[in-house]
Amino acid sequence: MSVRAGIIVTGTEVLTNRITDQNGPWLSRQLLTLGVDVAHIMICGDRPADLIAQLRFLTDQGVDLIVTSGGLGPTADDLTVATIAEFCHRELLLDPELEEHIAGIIRRYRPRTPDLDAGPTRTGIRKQAQIPTGATALPPTGTAPGVVIPPVAGDRPIPTIVILPGPPGELQQMWRSAIASPAVADVLTRAEDLQQETVRAYGLHEAQLAETLRRAEAENAGLDRLEITTCLRHGELDMVTRFDSRDVDIYRHLLQILTEHHGHQIFSTDGSTIDDQLVDALDGRSIATAESCTGGLVAARLTDRPGSSAYVTGGVVSYSNAAKSDLIDVPSELIASHGAVSEQVAAAMAEGARHRLQVDVAVSTTGIAGPGGGTESKPVGTVCFGVAVEGRPTYTVTRHFPGDRERVRDLTTTAALHLVVAQLRRK
Amino acid sequence: MSVRAGIIVTGTEVLTNRITDQNGPWLSRQLLTLGVDVAHIMICGDRPADLIAQLRFLTDQGVDLIVTSGGLGPTADDLTVATIAEFCHRELLLDPELEEHIAGIIRRYRPRTPDLDAGPTRTGIRKQAQIPTGATALPPTGTAPGVVIPPVAGDRPIPTIVILPGPPGELQQMWRSAIASPAVADVLTRAEDLQQETVRAYGLHEAQLAETLRRAEAENAGLDRLEITTCLRHGELDMVTRFDSRDVDIYRHLLQILTEHHGHQIFSTDGSTIDDQLVDALDGRSIATAESCTGGLVAARLTDRPGSSAYVTGGVVSYSNAAKSDLIDVPSELIASHGAVSEQVAAAMAEGARHRLQVDVAVSTTGIAGPGGGTESKPVGTVCFGVAVEGRPTYTVTRHFPGDRERVRDLTTTAALHLVVAQLRRK
Repeated sequence: MSVRAGIIVTGTEVLTNRITDQNGPWLSRQLLTLGVDVAHIMICGDRPADLIAQLRFLTDQGVDLIVTSGGLGPTADDLTVATIAEFCHRELLLDPELEEHIAGIIRRYRPRTPDLDAGPTRTGIRKQAQIPTGATALPPTGTAPGVVIPPVAGDRPIPTIVILPGPPGELQQMWRSAIASPAVADVLTRAEDLQQETVRAYGLHEAQLAETLRRAEAENAGLDRLEITTCLRHGELDMVTRFDSRDVDIYRHLLQILTEHHGHQIFSTDGSTIDDQLVDALDGRSIATAESCTGGLVAARLTDRPGSSAYVTGGVVSYSNAAKSDLIDVPSELIASHGAVSEQVAAAMAEGARHRLQVDVAVSTTGIAGPGGGTESKPVGTVCFGVAVEGRPTYTVTRHFPGDRERVRDLTTTAALHLVVAQLRRK
Repeated sequence: MSVRAGIIVTGTEVLTNRITDQNGPWLSRQLLTLGVDVAHIMICGDRPADLIAQLRFLTDQGVDLIVTSGGLGPTADDLTVATIAEFCHRELLLDPELEEHIAGIIRRYRPRTPDLDAGPTRTGIRKQAQIPTGATALPPTGTAPGVVIPPVAGDRPIPTIVILPGPPGELQQMWRSAIASPAVADVLTRAEDLQQETVRAYGLHEAQLAETLRRAEAENAGLDRLEITTCLRHGELDMVTRFDSRDVDIYRHLLQILTEHHGHQIFSTDGSTIDDQLVDALDGRSIATAESCTGGLVAARLTDRPGSSAYVTGGVVSYSNAAKSDLIDVPSELIASHGAVSEQVAAAMAEGARHRLQVDVAVSTTGIAGPGGGTESKPVGTVCFGVAVEGRPTYTVTRHFPGDRERVRDLTTTAALHLVVAQLRRK
């Protein structure tokens, strides 16, 4: 029996694009790995009527579990617990232990709070310590406790509802205690034994993959037992397949077909990203960057990883021509004769960064991210790359990327990583 | 009369967190500026039944307009147009002109497509050229046309439905023709004359702002006519207020109260961001970066802006101690005696970058982003900054940021921008 869930993300700031929701997608992924089928993610503002409508919708859709995020703060526009209690016809009760627990947290982190024992801070604490009758409070990971409300069977059934805080860090930290709570654990025991596998390709068109899948489907009886979705991201094509663990052989057969047809483009079948593979391919060697059009994005992506200081020595953002010459020794005559966006300059940037930063590997980007700066021969989206590896001739290549400034910079960053991995793996 | 809209984002890849939805928030913002109240953003996968349920929900909620994104591709899992046609009881008809238009686009951008006149590419084109009867096709901005379906009145009313492609670039480019189409334009004429204003503060606690608002409300009768939402982002506190244009004086009064109480923390009341203000404050001066823990994020943020090459000369990511010394002349004895994370080293980094890159202004970051590397005296989250401005003593400061690696790097990047602006504005 399949277990379905719905996610409700509350907050006018999310609804109106002032912050990007991270919780819906994160929760969806967690539920998926637990074998729960997420049917709907819904975002509503801080208006109780809209939240009630979404709760009603998910209940009518017959989901087994609703998870909400946001609206647990001390301020007056945070109404999630009260609204959901109303939806479930449950009263709100002040939990004095919880009140003291929250006060203790504030005492610890903001010792100089003046009005902890009376006044607005205490009002806020009392608000956060109200729990619907029959519900379980989840210990706060910030100051807001979470809530799990058990399901109601009968004529007008209500699914299990989990209420989590909005700040992604707090929500993620609370997740473990949420799924351990009896009402949620009970839902999860009914979840399927689902498996999810990811194939990642670079340089493969979505239509080509679709065609291979169509042909495979025509030959192979079992393929309809797999739920396959494809998506383009940062210029990579991801194919994610979900299936009942008993159908693993069908998936293996599909993987074989894909490898036959697109082995060149498929770079990952085990979930690893190009970032993971770069660390593997470096195999202890050090790396540095020399960036022009990406302006620091390649370095930022490399150093995004905990522990990256072990192999990332640093980098140079040589945005101006003077910076290219002064910091990484690109001859100004080279820039004058070939232009800053040229494979010659890309090579000199990578080599200069390799020598100046005394590393084994250096990668460079120089291109036209737009919107201005394009010419007939070098239109917006033209990017030259250089990869300098100790003891080898420097590799260079020119690529053309579509889209606006942000997209060109994004695609360039991904391409830089793929080029480094390809060069490091060459015999 | 208020006009309400709902947004449906389709795509299993969005529902399952393989890509982050940009369309829901973007569309929400566009509608808001047109005076349309967005009540719900909903995300569903590629299953028609779930899409139909969401269409039914929004229709039952009485929205005037539904905007969908995604599911317009040539592949078999892209079913949005067919599903919505079914929901509206409209047949799908092949539009031969549209078919030729799409074929023309593919001919232009992928001239070597082998099966354009028969085979899978042609099948895909035919699929994309199917339009529900009575609907208007919006010219493709990629290969997929959009669709506008006029509303149906009567017993079982259906709102105006706008179907847009999933890729954010294509969707955003198509928006103008979508709102110009007669059925959408008709909805928009009924929208309110709403105004939205933003106040941005840095270093202000949400609870402090809430308290000021509570007091203002107690004194001022009109404040309940404003819809106020606050949210924290990148360590900044944004307060967005929406109101009927006739209530502008009430808003002005609120702004006066806020400025009295929090004038020090409020840095923007005109919608400008700290990034905008940095460019203003530079006033033609050039800038460079010297980054350790942010690993390129400050440079990437500065160069995110079109035209930034006019004032961003470049930067150095001096992740290792050797890079700090070799690239920007930080004396290794300074690192040995004070540690890489110290105001002394931050000052030397900023000064070194200013001299090496020959700029007027340089900003540096050196800190412990975590998860490893923290000590008793310098825990994870400790970051030292330096701001070197031509003709002035170098400014340094140490800050402590909460959260994980990503959060610390993000907060550090924002702080760097605020520190630069503050220093540039000093008399």
